[in-house]
Amino acid sequence: MTVIDPGDFQTRIEKSFASQGAMAMLGAELTRVERGSVEIEMPFDPKLTQQHGFLHAGVIAAGLDSACGYAAYTLIEPEASILTIEFKINLMSPGRGERFLFRGEITKPGSTIIVADGRAYALGDGPAKLIASMSGSMMVIRGREDLAE
Amino acid sequence: MTVIDPGDFQTRIEKSFASQGAMAMLGAELTRVERGSVEIEMPFDPKLTQQHGFLHAGVIAAGLDSACGYAAYTLIEPEASILTIEFKINLMSPGRGERFLFRGEITKPGSTIIVADGRAYALGDGPAKLIASMSGSMMVIRGREDLAE
Amino acid sequence: MTVIDPGDFQTRIEKSFASQGAMAMLGAELTRVERGSVEIEMPFDPKLTQQHGFLHAGVIAAGLDSACGYAAYTLIEPEASILTIEFKINLMSPGRGERFLFRGEITKPGSTIIVADGRAYALGDGPAKLIASMSGSMMVIRGREDLAE
Amino acid sequence: MTVIDPGDFQTRIEKSFASQGAMAMLGAELTRVERGSVEIEMPFDPKLTQQHGFLHAGVIAAGLDSACGYAAYTLIEPEASILTIEFKINLMSPGRGERFLFRGEITKPGSTIIVADGRAYALGDGPAKLIASMSGSMMVIRGREDLAE
Repeated sequence: MTVIDPGDFQTRIEKSFASQGAMAMLGAELTRVERGSVEIEMPFDPKLTQQHGFLHAGVIAAGLDSACGYAAYTLIEPEASILTIEFKINLMSPGRGERFLFRGEITKPGSTIIVADGRAYALGDGPAKLIASMSGSMMVIRGREDLAE
Repeated sequence: MTVIDPGDFQTRIEKSFASQGAMAMLGAELTRVERGSVEIEMPFDPKLTQQHGFLHAGVIAAGLDSACGYAAYTLIEPEASILTIEFKINLMSPGRGERFLFRGEITKPGSTIIVADGRAYALGDGPAKLIASMSGSMMVIRGREDLAE
Repeated sequence: MTVIDPGDFQTRIEKSFASQGAMAMLGAELTRVERGSVEIEMPFDPKLTQQHGFLHAGVIAAGLDSACGYAAYTLIEPEASILTIEFKINLMSPGRGERFLFRGEITKPGSTIIVADGRAYALGDGPAKLIASMSGSMMVIRGREDLAE
Repeated sequence: MTVIDPGDFQTRIEKSFASQGAMAMLGAELTRVERGSVEIEMPFDPKLTQQHGFLHAGVIAAGLDSACGYAAYTLIEPEASILTIEFKINLMSPGRGERFLFRGEITKPGSTIIVADGRAYALGDGPAKLIASMSGSMMVIRGREDLAE
């Protein structure tokens, strides 16, 4: 198995994150980037809700997909890029809290397909509450400069 | 099988849609509400993008989940509500276009669990392009006034 | 886009199907092979049941995954092969019937990733009953002779 | 939250497992039953293979779904039953080995919906190899004596 040197993935991921219109719109911040694991946080905002006043499932999906996608970026060479092929999300508790934490972790690295799992938590006064889980497949894209980063 | 009268579901769905902070933030409109089928549209906006400038997967998830959830609302009695248990989304083409259409349709009605399938399309100069599909499980919630509508 | 000639995919798929220990064990037959669509049928057998006497979800998964996988084979060149990356199955009604039909169809062709959707039906005296749906991602494998067919 | 007493779940699960035609056909054994976690093992057999000679994805699904379903049974009262609503499986490595281990664990208990995650491993000479993961939603069924156990 070829060992891939991901280089300075932290700087690349920070730059890529900053270029995402959606992350800015959601008020999301990149709070942790380690090899194989990325965390994103965002505060609750009434703009992000569904009809019951909880965090919209699409917002949860945005946080989880970005966290999982960037977790995959920590494993690939600087010239490559990641595209999400698919994800599945189980919504386990209402998205009610002061802040939300999205953690993406690599379950299975691979040269073409990387499998990642994510968990979303609501943060507030008490202990963190698991609100959703995701499992997703990411594809490594090479030789497409238009998609680099 | 008990026949459920969903009453004036169109008015209820319009009211519920209008109460979603997330749909307003995304610039989304409810463009079609029929028994078992709902469509939502939104224009492209750089605020909704991921790092390659395409529609963020979370935005696609938001449109598909809302369309599928409201398709389920067209089948339930006025006092009941719908919660999404889970969904899986396949991303098939980049979210690139002038507008986007999200269609949710009921695959299997049920008194407790409703299965819905959704498709997302990019609209522009040429023919509509399928960009994503979703399959999701919705649960009918009864006797929880806090979740009505 | 390069046009791929799948050659005599029917013969290849029949040969591949015949080599599957699992399809023989399940009593499954390949009943239809067309470009982009494959059907498999199997009779009910008490050996295939879960604890309530219905068809086991794993048997449903076997039928759906094989139907979807072979639907993908109808689109690829003779030297290539297909591996399933992932699938999601919604179980909608108990697997109760005299026979079962599994249909796999291509939703999105692609040179590397092919997205397929499947439906499983119970057959008996009355109309066919939809018991499950699947959405899956298949990867086209090239240059791996050990996996050809 | 009501505390549910699952009673002697081990005996119930053993009895239920023994009644599954599919588990016998696969040569599967129940090797561990604890509150919230169940393991099933089966030896490799050419009858269980797909066209490349690896364990068929449907067999992997059967092992994972049964392990996750029985993990849910460890949390419910003796009169209730479990039905799988849906599951998603990521296939990460070929199902090649002497034996296979399927572990199901509860991620989120609930009075109506229980979310479980499963992992499948190939066992042989070296270390256990992760070949697949599953995330599934199980529904607790009450008041349906025909489905008890």
